[in-house]
Amino acid sequence: MLRDAGSWHFEFNAIVASVRDRILGLAGLSREAGFEAIPLQGSGTFGVEAVFATGVPPHGKVLVLANGAYGERIVLMLQRARIEHAILHTPTDTPGDPAALDHELAADKSITHVAAVHCETTTGILNPIVEIGKVVKKHGRSYVLDAMSSFGAIPIDFEAAGIDYLISSANKCIEGVPGFSFVIARRAALLACEGCARSLSLDLLDQLKGFEKNGQFRYTPPTHAILAFQQALNEFDQEGGLSGRAARYRRNHSILLEGMKQIGFRPYLQPEVQSYIITAFHYPDDPKFTFQNFYHRLSDRGFIIYPGKLTQANCFRIGTIGRIFEADIRALLAAIRETIRELGVRMRNGRR
Amino acid sequence: MLRDAGSWHFEFNAIVASVRDRILGLAGLSREAGFEAIPLQGSGTFGVEAVFATGVPPHGKVLVLANGAYGERIVLMLQRARIEHAILHTPTDTPGDPAALDHELAADKSITHVAAVHCETTTGILNPIVEIGKVVKKHGRSYVLDAMSSFGAIPIDFEAAGIDYLISSANKCIEGVPGFSFVIARRAALLACEGCARSLSLDLLDQLKGFEKNGQFRYTPPTHAILAFQQALNEFDQEGGLSGRAARYRRNHSILLEGMKQIGFRPYLQPEVQSYIITAFHYPDDPKFTFQNFYHRLSDRGFIIYPGKLTQANCFRIGTIGRIFEADIRALLAAIRETIRELGVRMRNGRR
Repeated sequence: MLRDAGSWHFEFNAIVASVRDRILGLAGLSREAGFEAIPLQGSGTFGVEAVFATGVPPHGKVLVLANGAYGERIVLMLQRARIEHAILHTPTDTPGDPAALDHELAADKSITHVAAVHCETTTGILNPIVEIGKVVKKHGRSYVLDAMSSFGAIPIDFEAAGIDYLISSANKCIEGVPGFSFVIARRAALLACEGCARSLSLDLLDQLKGFEKNGQFRYTPPTHAILAFQQALNEFDQEGGLSGRAARYRRNHSILLEGMKQIGFRPYLQPEVQSYIITAFHYPDDPKFTFQNFYHRLSDRGFIIYPGKLTQANCFRIGTIGRIFEADIRALLAAIRETIRELGVRMRNGRR
Repeated sequence: MLRDAGSWHFEFNAIVASVRDRILGLAGLSREAGFEAIPLQGSGTFGVEAVFATGVPPHGKVLVLANGAYGERIVLMLQRARIEHAILHTPTDTPGDPAALDHELAADKSITHVAAVHCETTTGILNPIVEIGKVVKKHGRSYVLDAMSSFGAIPIDFEAAGIDYLISSANKCIEGVPGFSFVIARRAALLACEGCARSLSLDLLDQLKGFEKNGQFRYTPPTHAILAFQQALNEFDQEGGLSGRAARYRRNHSILLEGMKQIGFRPYLQPEVQSYIITAFHYPDDPKFTFQNFYHRLSDRGFIIYPGKLTQANCFRIGTIGRIFEADIRALLAAIRETIRELGVRMRNGRR
C-alpha cells in the first residue's frame, strides 16, 4: 500500500484485471458464465446506489425487503433518485418473508426489481437469500443483493438464488482497506440498461465499458486501496479461501457468544437467524451501565465495538470479521469483564 | 497510512474535523466567513457531480465553459443527471471568454449556475476564473469551479471570484493519495438546496449534516487516505504553504519547458495561458516517433508521462505537480534525450 502506482499505467491495469477476475473466482463465477466484477470508487453505499442508478429503467419499480438500517438505506437512495419503490418490512429480529414477497409480486406487476440485504448488520440477522431469489425468479423480476458484510465469508449460490447484482466492499470479509466497493453483475442484465443511468460517477455500465476499452478505471481509482486488496486476496487464499475464512469467523463468533453469555449478556437474536459476522447484545438491566462509558473504557484497552443501530431496543454490537483471531476475542472478553467490574454493573446472572 | 483507524471512532473524527478546518485555512477561508469544506468518498469526478446533484434545483440550468475534456465531462454528468444545461465553447488553446459569458447570461435568464474549470489539464491551460466570476456575480448566478489540479498551488481569491462551490481532490497539489475529493461550499448556497439532491451517496448537504451531527462520514470513509492526507497537509505547511509549493511547481515547469525546447519539442500552448501544473507538447514531426514506444521506454527508465487528451492535435503531456523536484525533472529530461536518440527520431532543430 505504500507504492504510488500510476492509475492508468499498464502495470496497475494488470492488477485491476487480476483483481476483477479473482472476485469472480471467489464467487464461483466467471466471465464465460456471463458475470462481470466491477469495482467502483467510494464506500459500499456508492456501489449499492450505482446498481439502482444504472440498472433500473425510467419506469422501473423496486421492492425492498427491509429489516434493518441497510434495507432502509436502500429505500432512502431510491427516494433521493426518484425511483418508484415499495417496502416489505419484517421486524428487525425476523428474516425477510418469501411468502409475503410472493404475494406482493403477484399483486404488483409493475415491480421490476427486488432488493434484499444478506446479512443485515443492524442486528447481524441473516436473510434467506435463496428462498427470496426463487420467488423473484418465479415472477421473472431482477434480483439485487446487498452482500456487503457477508461476501467472502458466507457461501452464496448465485445460480440457485438467481442473483442479477451483488454488491460488496473491499473492507469487509476480504479484509482489504476502505476505498471502493464492487458489484458482481450478470452481464446481460447490465447491458440491457444502456441509456438508463441517472449518474455519471455511479454509471456501472460505463465503468465496465471503461475496463473493457483500455483496462482502466474511467476516473482516478484509489490505487493504494486496490494494491492492498490484491494482498488481501492473497491472504484470503492462504487462509483456505471462503471455507477457511468462514471457519475462523464462526469460531470468533461462538467464542464471543459463549463468553458474553457467561458474563451475563443477552444476545438480541435467536441463534437460528444469527450470523457469525456481527452480534447484537442487549444493554445490562442496570442504570450503572452507559454505552458511552463502556465504549470508552474498552477503547482505552484497545478494543473498538459498535454502538447499536436499533431504535426499539438498547443494544451494542460486536463484529467478529476482519483481521481478528480467537486470542483477540478472548482478550476482548477479558476487557469486557474488567470494564463491567470497574463500572460496578450488576449482570442478570447476579455476578458483578 | 498503515494505521487501521476506526472509521467513526472519536480519534478518527478529530482528524476529520482538523482536515476539514485545514482545507478551509489553506483556501484563506473559515467557517465563520460562511464556508464549509466537505470531503466526499470517490475520485474528483464524484465531487464535481455531487455539487450539481445537490446544488442545482429541479428547474435549474447550468452553463458550462468548456475548452477541454474536463469541461466536457461536466456536460456529460449534467446529461446523465437530466439537468438542463448549455455550453460555451472556446478552442482548447483559448481561455474561457468572460465577454461571451456576459452576453450569454444576459440572453438566457433561465441559467442558474455557471461552471468553469480552473486549470484544464487536457492542455494545461489556465482559465480566467476571477473575470469569469465577476460576470457570473454581476448576473446574480451561482459559480461552480472545478479546481481539481490547481487548488493548493495556484492562488484562488474566493471573494474576488465569488465562488460558491470549489471542487478539488486529495491527490493533486496537496499530494495526498487518491480516495476522496473535497468541496468548499458557501454554506448559505448549500443550505438553500435542501430537498434538491438527486443522489444519496453524492448528497453534499447530507454529508455536511453528517459531520455536524456526530463528526462522522455518513458512509465508510477511506480512512487510510484521510490519514495520508493529514500527513500531506503537514508536508504542505512545512514547504511554506501555497507559495512554497507554487514556487517548486513553477520551477519544475520552467526547467521542463526550457529543457524540452532545447531537445526540440514544441509546447502546445502560448506561454501567457500555460499553467505550471501540466504541459502539453506536440509529437515530433518524424514518423519514427510513436507515443507507445516513447511511453514504454520512459516507463522502463522510471518515468510515467501522460498521453494526450486532444482529438485535433497529436500531443503528450508531462505533469510537474506531486512529490517531484528539480532533480527529477532533470533526470526526466536526460531520459527523454536518451529515448529520442535510441528511437532515432529527428527533432525540428535538426539534432537527433
